[in-house]
Amino acid sequence: MSDEYLGPDLLARIRERAGRYDHDNDFFDEDLRDLVDAGYLAVHVPAGLGGGGASLRDLTRAQRSLAGAAPATALAVNMHHVWVAVANVVHARGEDFADEVLTGAAAGEIYAFGISEPGNDLMLFGSTSEADPDGEGGYRFSGTKIFTSLSPAWTRLGVFGTDASSPDAPKSVFAFLDREEVSADRVEILDDWDTLGQRASQSRTTILRRAHAPADRVIRRIDPGPSNDPLIFGIFACFEILLASVYTGIAERALTLAAEAAQRRTSRKNDGATLAADPDVRRRIASAGIRLDGVGQQIEALARDVDERADHGELWFPRLSALKWRATEVAREVVTASVQVAGGAAYRSEHELSRLYRDVLAGMFHPSSEDSAHAAMAGVLLGPLPR
Amino acid sequence: MSDEYLGPDLLARIRERAGRYDHDNDFFDEDLRDLVDAGYLAVHVPAGLGGGGASLRDLTRAQRSLAGAAPATALAVNMHHVWVAVANVVHARGEDFADEVLTGAAAGEIYAFGISEPGNDLMLFGSTSEADPDGEGGYRFSGTKIFTSLSPAWTRLGVFGTDASSPDAPKSVFAFLDREEVSADRVEILDDWDTLGQRASQSRTTILRRAHAPADRVIRRIDPGPSNDPLIFGIFACFEILLASVYTGIAERALTLAAEAAQRRTSRKNDGATLAADPDVRRRIASAGIRLDGVGQQIEALARDVDERADHGELWFPRLSALKWRATEVAREVVTASVQVAGGAAYRSEHELSRLYRDVLAGMFHPSSEDSAHAAMAGVLLGPLPR
Amino acid sequence: MSDEYLGPDLLARIRERAGRYDHDNDFFDEDLRDLVDAGYLAVHVPAGLGGGGASLRDLTRAQRSLAGAAPATALAVNMHHVWVAVANVVHARGEDFADEVLTGAAAGEIYAFGISEPGNDLMLFGSTSEADPDGEGGYRFSGTKIFTSLSPAWTRLGVFGTDASSPDAPKSVFAFLDREEVSADRVEILDDWDTLGQRASQSRTTILRRAHAPADRVIRRIDPGPSNDPLIFGIFACFEILLASVYTGIAERALTLAAEAAQRRTSRKNDGATLAADPDVRRRIASAGIRLDGVGQQIEALARDVDERADHGELWFPRLSALKWRATEVAREVVTASVQVAGGAAYRSEHELSRLYRDVLAGMFHPSSEDSAHAAMAGVLLGPLPR
Amino acid sequence: MSDEYLGPDLLARIRERAGRYDHDNDFFDEDLRDLVDAGYLAVHVPAGLGGGGASLRDLTRAQRSLAGAAPATALAVNMHHVWVAVANVVHARGEDFADEVLTGAAAGEIYAFGISEPGNDLMLFGSTSEADPDGEGGYRFSGTKIFTSLSPAWTRLGVFGTDASSPDAPKSVFAFLDREEVSADRVEILDDWDTLGQRASQSRTTILRRAHAPADRVIRRIDPGPSNDPLIFGIFACFEILLASVYTGIAERALTLAAEAAQRRTSRKNDGATLAADPDVRRRIASAGIRLDGVGQQIEALARDVDERADHGELWFPRLSALKWRATEVAREVVTASVQVAGGAAYRSEHELSRLYRDVLAGMFHPSSEDSAHAAMAGVLLGPLPR
Repeated sequence: MSDEYLGPDLLARIRERAGRYDHDNDFFDEDLRDLVDAGYLAVHVPAGLGGGGASLRDLTRAQRSLAGAAPATALAVNMHHVWVAVANVVHARGEDFADEVLTGAAAGEIYAFGISEPGNDLMLFGSTSEADPDGEGGYRFSGTKIFTSLSPAWTRLGVFGTDASSPDAPKSVFAFLDREEVSADRVEILDDWDTLGQRASQSRTTILRRAHAPADRVIRRIDPGPSNDPLIFGIFACFEILLASVYTGIAERALTLAAEAAQRRTSRKNDGATLAADPDVRRRIASAGIRLDGVGQQIEALARDVDERADHGELWFPRLSALKWRATEVAREVVTASVQVAGGAAYRSEHELSRLYRDVLAGMFHPSSEDSAHAAMAGVLLGPLPR
Repeated sequence: MSDEYLGPDLLARIRERAGRYDHDNDFFDEDLRDLVDAGYLAVHVPAGLGGGGASLRDLTRAQRSLAGAAPATALAVNMHHVWVAVANVVHARGEDFADEVLTGAAAGEIYAFGISEPGNDLMLFGSTSEADPDGEGGYRFSGTKIFTSLSPAWTRLGVFGTDASSPDAPKSVFAFLDREEVSADRVEILDDWDTLGQRASQSRTTILRRAHAPADRVIRRIDPGPSNDPLIFGIFACFEILLASVYTGIAERALTLAAEAAQRRTSRKNDGATLAADPDVRRRIASAGIRLDGVGQQIEALARDVDERADHGELWFPRLSALKWRATEVAREVVTASVQVAGGAAYRSEHELSRLYRDVLAGMFHPSSEDSAHAAMAGVLLGPLPR
Repeated sequence: MSDEYLGPDLLARIRERAGRYDHDNDFFDEDLRDLVDAGYLAVHVPAGLGGGGASLRDLTRAQRSLAGAAPATALAVNMHHVWVAVANVVHARGEDFADEVLTGAAAGEIYAFGISEPGNDLMLFGSTSEADPDGEGGYRFSGTKIFTSLSPAWTRLGVFGTDASSPDAPKSVFAFLDREEVSADRVEILDDWDTLGQRASQSRTTILRRAHAPADRVIRRIDPGPSNDPLIFGIFACFEILLASVYTGIAERALTLAAEAAQRRTSRKNDGATLAADPDVRRRIASAGIRLDGVGQQIEALARDVDERADHGELWFPRLSALKWRATEVAREVVTASVQVAGGAAYRSEHELSRLYRDVLAGMFHPSSEDSAHAAMAGVLLGPLPR
Repeated sequence: MSDEYLGPDLLARIRERAGRYDHDNDFFDEDLRDLVDAGYLAVHVPAGLGGGGASLRDLTRAQRSLAGAAPATALAVNMHHVWVAVANVVHARGEDFADEVLTGAAAGEIYAFGISEPGNDLMLFGSTSEADPDGEGGYRFSGTKIFTSLSPAWTRLGVFGTDASSPDAPKSVFAFLDREEVSADRVEILDDWDTLGQRASQSRTTILRRAHAPADRVIRRIDPGPSNDPLIFGIFACFEILLASVYTGIAERALTLAAEAAQRRTSRKNDGATLAADPDVRRRIASAGIRLDGVGQQIEALARDVDERADHGELWFPRLSALKWRATEVAREVVTASVQVAGGAAYRSEHELSRLYRDVLAGMFHPSSEDSAHAAMAGVLLGPLPR
């Protein structure tokens, strides 16, 4: 399993470290260095701007490969790629307000995603953080952000908050904070990441205490609530598609391990034949393969549609959220089926499948949730829910 | 619901007749005449050859619309379109042996599909019918074909049989029989179509008694068994994709009826609010919509891949058969969920949903079966089953 | 398939007639005569009162057998048995207000169920029919009842309506109407039963026009709304359990037909072996068998708990409604899987499985619905839904 | 959550320790001492023999409670209870060969289960361990046993091996080894238990090197292969039912935690209402509750049938293995749904649900597997698979 952007040697090195990072609850420093060296963080930056020129579809394939090697590494790097992809979407739709992400990524900046907040299920549609205007077009942000992957390493943290004081308030303000805000004690990164899986992502809690983004780092200021703003569409589309890719990559790896186990394990009941000859095992693997393949086709189709600027109208949002939901759900089922094929050995702590079983569960916690995906589709098919 | 090729008026007329054809167990004569008049049977013939120039992807959309109006009409016409699509696939891959189907369809010929045989689960990989060489490059076919849709109307019947007598035997021989073979009593069409659903398709049993295809109607002669011959690939790809489209169209119609019912029915329990405000009903419809939407994306992706000659290697066959399986399965589930939303009224004989519930079941009987789809995927993931 | 109360000959005769009744949309007159002659309508009346003395658990088994022979006959007779079972429940809990049903059934009366009303999802908790006091303890009922199985044959119709005029109004009033009310034109039975399945049940619409129940036919007068009244518990428990039995019996029959088909059909792909040797077919049948067996255990357990007066507290209602839901859902899945095993032949109109496929769908329309079963369980686990 | 045999204080103490045992990968010494002190290990010994007199049904309830407090403790203690229950089954069927387990358990012996062997999917039907006759009616056992729960604490290890040398060989020999065999170096317990979950069970690998069971510790000597011997039936029945109970108890606990979380968590999207008011959350919890409740009814029914010596004929084996399969499957689904309700907090290492998610997975590795449960049912419905 390799691809154009991540060679087999690099993936092998990354895979080799994954167990250790997980066990020690360490950030994937060495992986990150290797990925930076390989130019992977600029792979989706247009070639004209010094990047790799990969399409979003290309990127989804690379992220599936990377997730197959090290889920937490792929998940954390995903957040950087989301910002780059958003900037591409915005740029392709004729606006330049996010272009600095493209040039920044080409220049070596590492972007993190500071959007999620504790107990805030409005997600992109309304922040509980405060965005206080500095009077010169910049903002000071205060609040708590959770699940900040890449915490130890980001150089630019994308955040949003609510401007409640300007004459046209409320507005949702999106901006990038510099790493210097950490040294200046206006951004505190807690050392609180101790989870069942995805441990190397070190998606710690981030406290903002009047963290400052000057005017040239404020990229967007829009009304709260559902919106067709290109930034909102871009975040939504790229986040869902790339997240779907990461979890699909995890499941593809699990299925590979299952197929290997089936070809290795034998059955006394079946006179020593391998499990690859057992009809029930074949069926289980085929069923997992078919489901996974179906998700793969959907990722490819929707990524291509973003690349080609296809118009799905009001179906875009339910389609994207359903993709993420289906992908993470299928991934969980495929990992479980793979564990079943591999048998009791897969239950041992050192077995890769036992780690994948822990990692894959995180898929359900990222937005969009199963319920919001269904609500979005119901809204299109039946109109809004009367309150 | 309409599209480029089938206007709303035509679809409305066709929908209006569907219940009567079903009740009387009649063939859809008037529909067929209208479709011929609208040029629909040549819609997938290249424009250069006098056809409509629709891509396979375009055709899947039109067939979904048509199936939403009249499932049995769409299913039967599908068989004609499969042959045209096969001819396109073969032509696009640089061979001209099936070109006569393109010119024939442009000239008004109606093609039917005489492949299925009673109790023969080898399908395309080996016929139980006899193909006896006439010594001049033609063949005389003997055997029984089942599920011959369009029985009352075809002008060319595509058949295959096994040549067991030539020096290089066995060979699978594919050829087209002329309607004159019926008048000549070498082809007998039984009047035996009385089924739960898809009644208007009149997919009767066809008996071949040394039915003659002269040399210029024999299009292919290949080894039995799995094969990458462009004819086999073409039949497989076009049959599965177009069949998936028909059943998806049925389910889309059911979901539309369900949504309409939800907006009309009220609940005393909920103080007279419509069911469109009931969270359980919204969820049921959203779930159906999400599943259907996922299948739709897969149909579009694979149809486009056929149009663009994408290379899926050994995954082509499992992908195509899985698509057909998933589409017919999802269609059945969506129709059932739609019936549930519509309530007891949908159980009445005259209700469109009670007909769709009968029609949609047929999806499981067409090849590829659920089991062969899984066997194909297992073969790719685990290698062939040792015998 | 037979049991203590219904011999194999009787069941065979009933099975033989089922196709004809279905095709002609006729009521099951001859079946009913045979069942009456066999004492089957008094089978659940205590022996001391001249009945068969069968327990509710015994009755569920007999109804499964009967449903396996003729679903519509079993479904319609079920309604009579529900009333008898309710009377047993009430009697066993120390009240005699429903005893007349026991003596009536022993004396040859045939009871029907006039509860369901169009668009009324409150079900037992509030009638849209009017119950007007006659000043002597009796009532005159006006309103519309739907799905009145046994319409051509009942001698006593159990109804309920709302007394909105008495000083202590509103009250739900339960009473039995005599067949004479039909001749007196105060009860009209429409000839409007033309459905997808369960056709022989002739569950027609019944119009009440001040239909009179004298005081001695009024059995209960209670507050509308959820209630632990023994009548409400009895109707709920017996209706759900017996309905679950009918649909389980349908599915058991389907599975038997599937197993027979598997033992008869052969596969060319598998060198002529029967499908009973095909691992996928074995799995499909086993899976159906396991699901069905699980439902059977639940029917037995809950019927026994009613017989033994076990106390499930507030779990009684969710348990009973979940049983009915699961049973009808599993039945539908098992019939579908059986059709799949039997193959294309099962799609022909004259095949028993094509009838079972139509009959089994009705399960979802009887109360309790899937949604109310879930709402009941949510209420127990999370408390009532805040309004 | 408590019951007759395990008071709330005891369960609370046990629950409190569970996280620590899991984290430190320690055996549940203190729990075991408490349970012994409470008489819990003799609870299923007949009162007449000095035990608690609990029925198997009572025991399933107690084990569900215990598993809800500490899954690994319950799972390990389960193995002891299986032997006691087997002895009860055998005794109740008129044989006394296993009575020593009843008196032993009453006297404080702790029984462990040394049946599973690496790569041996024949399970009870044929051991890969050698049972060498000592000439005096005793045996010397050699081989490897895996998943020996209670490794640090058992005083009697039930094992089986194949006698391949006696004149009537081969025979399966069942016997109990004394703890002294460990000191005598004829039984070695590896320190190799480091798994994803069920960590406190310390189900280590056991190596037998001519471990000696004298004649009075050999309880049974039978032909290998499927068998209706009361010992085989007893092991099968008690193992499956009690295992089902443990995993059901885990899931019941998860659902309780989910319901608590739903009543605590609020939604900004829904104006601060708790998730207990969210229809999707209610449905998710109701669905979990309904599935779990169904399994509970099956456990009760089958345990009662064992207690009452009901005769299920050839359905006994598929019923029992299906129960175990369904219970562990439903448990896994319910835990996953509970995690989903509890949200991201449940993904933290210290959250009880993240431990239950790891523990519950083990259910699929115990016999009977999903596949053998289905094979057993297929065997009954279709006859044996032709070889």
